[in-house]
Order: sequence, then C-alpha cells, then structure tokens
Amino acid sequence: MRDRGLHYGDGVFETIAVRGGEPLRWGRHLSRLQKGCRRLGISEPDAAILEGEARTLCAGYGQAVLKLIVTRGVGTRGYASSIGVPATRILGLYPWPSFPSHNNSRGIAVRVCSTRLGINPSLAGIKHLNRLENVTARLEWDDGAFEEGLMLDVDEFVIEATAANLFLVAGERLLTPRLDRCGVAGIMRELILEGASARGIPVSEARVTLADLEAADELFLSNSLIGIWPIRQVGQRRVPVGPLAGCIRESLGY
Amino acid sequence: MRDRGLHYGDGVFETIAVRGGEPLRWGRHLSRLQKGCRRLGISEPDAAILEGEARTLCAGYGQAVLKLIVTRGVGTRGYASSIGVPATRILGLYPWPSFPSHNNSRGIAVRVCSTRLGINPSLAGIKHLNRLENVTARLEWDDGAFEEGLMLDVDEFVIEATAANLFLVAGERLLTPRLDRCGVAGIMRELILEGASARGIPVSEARVTLADLEAADELFLSNSLIGIWPIRQVGQRRVPVGPLAGCIRESLGY
Repeated sequence: MRDRGLHYGDGVFETIAVRGGEPLRWGRHLSRLQKGCRRLGISEPDAAILEGEARTLCAGYGQAVLKLIVTRGVGTRGYASSIGVPATRILGLYPWPSFPSHNNSRGIAVRVCSTRLGINPSLAGIKHLNRLENVTARLEWDDGAFEEGLMLDVDEFVIEATAANLFLVAGERLLTPRLDRCGVAGIMRELILEGASARGIPVSEARVTLADLEAADELFLSNSLIGIWPIRQVGQRRVPVGPLAGCIRESLGY
Repeated sequence: MRDRGLHYGDGVFETIAVRGGEPLRWGRHLSRLQKGCRRLGISEPDAAILEGEARTLCAGYGQAVLKLIVTRGVGTRGYASSIGVPATRILGLYPWPSFPSHNNSRGIAVRVCSTRLGINPSLAGIKHLNRLENVTARLEWDDGAFEEGLMLDVDEFVIEATAANLFLVAGERLLTPRLDRCGVAGIMRELILEGASARGIPVSEARVTLADLEAADELFLSNSLIGIWPIRQVGQRRVPVGPLAGCIRESLGY
C-alpha cells in the first residue's frame, strides 16, 4: 500500500500473450519495459530474474495473458524518491479473452471517443501506469455495438484506440499516427512497421486527422492480444475491409 | 494487486493536515474528493463511513498527515470497468514533515522544472492518481538548494509547483494560474482565493508566464501542509519577500 505505483501511477507495464506456456515476443516486451524505466528514471529490474518469474508463472498455461508491472518501488509520502529503492515487480496471469473469430475476417465497429489524450512529449509512447484518459474513454460506452473507441489528442489528431494502435492504408502505403506527443507505442505496431518495410510496403508515421480516416482505403487496429483487426465501421460510417490487413496479419502468423 | 488504482492510477487522493487528533478542513477535502469521483465516474464512497475511518485513524495524534486514496475498485484486466464494483478506500497516517520555520519568514528558493505538464481539460484540477509529471519534475533535483520546483505546461504557461499552488502579488492584486487545462486545484488555494475576496483584495485566475513572475511584487506557494511559503528566489534570481504573503498566512491561522 506504500508502493508508488498505487500512489502516483509511477511505473510501466506490459501485456503479453502467452501460448503453450511461453510469453510471446518476450525480448521485445522486455526491451520496451527497460526503455520505459530508463525514460522515467526507474531502476531497471534484473532481466534474468524477471524472465525466470514470467516463465515460471506461464508454465503449463496453453493460452493466457501475462501482465507485468514494474514500479519505482515503495516510498514515503511525497513525490521525491529515495535513492537505492528497488523497483517493484508485479506479475499477474489472466484468462485469455474470448475474441469472436469474425473480428479478424469481417472486422470491428469503432466509435470516436470524446475523451481526448493530453499532449506531453516527455511521456509519449511509454506504456506507463498513468492511464486515466484511456479509462475514461473506455467508460464512454458499455453496449456491444462497438468493440473499440478511437482517441484523438487535444489538438484533434487521431492517435490510437483505447487499447490498440491504429493503421491506415492509403493506396499502396501504410500509415500510423506519430506517437511523439502522446499514445502508447505498441509491440505489434512495431512488428507491423518492421514487417511492412521488409516487404517493400512504404510505411510512415504521420499526423492523422478524422478526414484522413474517411479517405483511407482500409483501417485496422493492432495490439499484442488481438493481433490485427480490420475496422469495418467508424461511428455510423461503413469502412471497406480490404486485403492488406489480412495479408499483414497472415505474415505475422495470426 | 488487482486494484485499478495500481493498474491505471484510476482514482483520486487527498493529503490532509492532522492537528490534535482531527483531520483539518475535513469538509473541504471530502467535497473535493467527491467532486473528483463524480468527474471521473467513480462511485463516491459513503461520506459517513469515510469520516469515521479518518477520525478513528487520526485520534490521539497531535500532528500528522492523513492521506486518503479512493480508487474505482478492483477490476479484471482491461480498461473497461465492471458495473457496481465498490470504490476502494485506502487511508494512511504519516509523520508530520519537519519544515524549517524560516520557510515562513524568509521564504524558500524554487527552481523552474524542465518537465512540462500535459494539457487535458477533462482531467485538469482533479487531484487524481496520474502524477508521473509531478514525479519526474521532482526527480530533477536532489540537493537542498531548492525547496520546490515550478512547473510550466507544454505551452510554457506557469501552472503550479510540484506539490503546491502558486500565487503572484501584482500591486494590490493577487493572481494565481488558471487550472482549466492542467494542475491540481488545492484546498489552501481555494481558502486563499475566498479569504482575499472577503477582505476586498482583488483576486483573479490567469494565464501566467515566466515574465509575469519576474514582474511580480511577491510570489508564494500554498498547500494544506505548508500553508503559505513566500518565494525568495526563482532559480538564481532574487524575489522580494513582501508583506502580503505573511498577512494572508496570518489571516488563515498559520
């Protein structure tokens, strides 16, 4: 109860798909976690210990979700941090969510959230524990009509979904919002960008507007659990479900 | 460990001065807590139960600090919140910090932090648990040369100190930064604004720049623990310690 994770959201986390008892893409998740710790000045947890704990927890689980939290550790009252306090490691295993398989094929419906993402370059991209904006955005709807919600920043640029990254297909090109002012840089997003580049598909990170979404040939979401879901509807507007989302999903083994 | 306070910073808090076994200004703290819960859609905790717990915890302590955390409660994985989950109440009692008494009289030195506050009107003013910006700002210095650090927003307006509100005296007028885009609306700030108005001192909430600080006749900080501290130095620049800060402090009983 004295942990700075609770008091200030002073930490980072990872959400990792588990298959056949193994945390998938462990190296990438670890690397992002370490990078987040460095950017926030949190002591990096010992990689070997963390991996041992993760593998022990996941062993024997065919399909599950591993959530990893690393905080700046326990503290006294106040924002100042004591020197030499070890980071706290919290590992939790959750049931694999039962996504409808047609999310992959026919795509999903998303709404545009009214909650905006604040702009702060010093925290942008980090998967940190200050997630009130995502929480309040997700609280905007509770019917089953929409699977996800798109979030804009306070300058009205489209950034991400509440728990996924966004991609646009424009002709032969792949676009995804730049995450230099807010948003979470996802592992699946990173894989998609690398994979597309390797296959000669022109990719870029850009400032994206709602008008860009309307003009796009395809839209899709990505995260480490869903892989890739095409978007078939934004609000009440239909969006074409095209071939590129499926093609990239297959190339990633989903 | 499944509490949304830890996972997302999904909650609010209060830091309350305790004197003679009593949490001071209980009504105002409770009111701000309830308002924060309403803005975030968190179930408001039962006021009578919370007050009972607080008074029981504080009883017998001459001088202490009561910290109160209310979160959206426990959750499954993911940002979506289950209906009907009760809010979590966490109460902690901490030793009273030993502030040097000359902070009141001769004033304190503050630095200007390089960490910026992000702008998000939907969260502005709320004393919520997403405090990574304050944490990283406070980590910028660890020598004793500065007692506090001033924080600017990403548009370079001066907003607050890492753990206190800021006031400027300009002639006969009292100014404090507007908190409609970021920052925490402090209880002591509220008392100062009300007290000054009642005594006929013109007060206003304004957009404040570093140039405004340089032009000010007096500067001071406020929060529920320190009361009012005049600022005698911003970075390497001396600031006059004038009469108004002391006058307001006395009128508030500090």
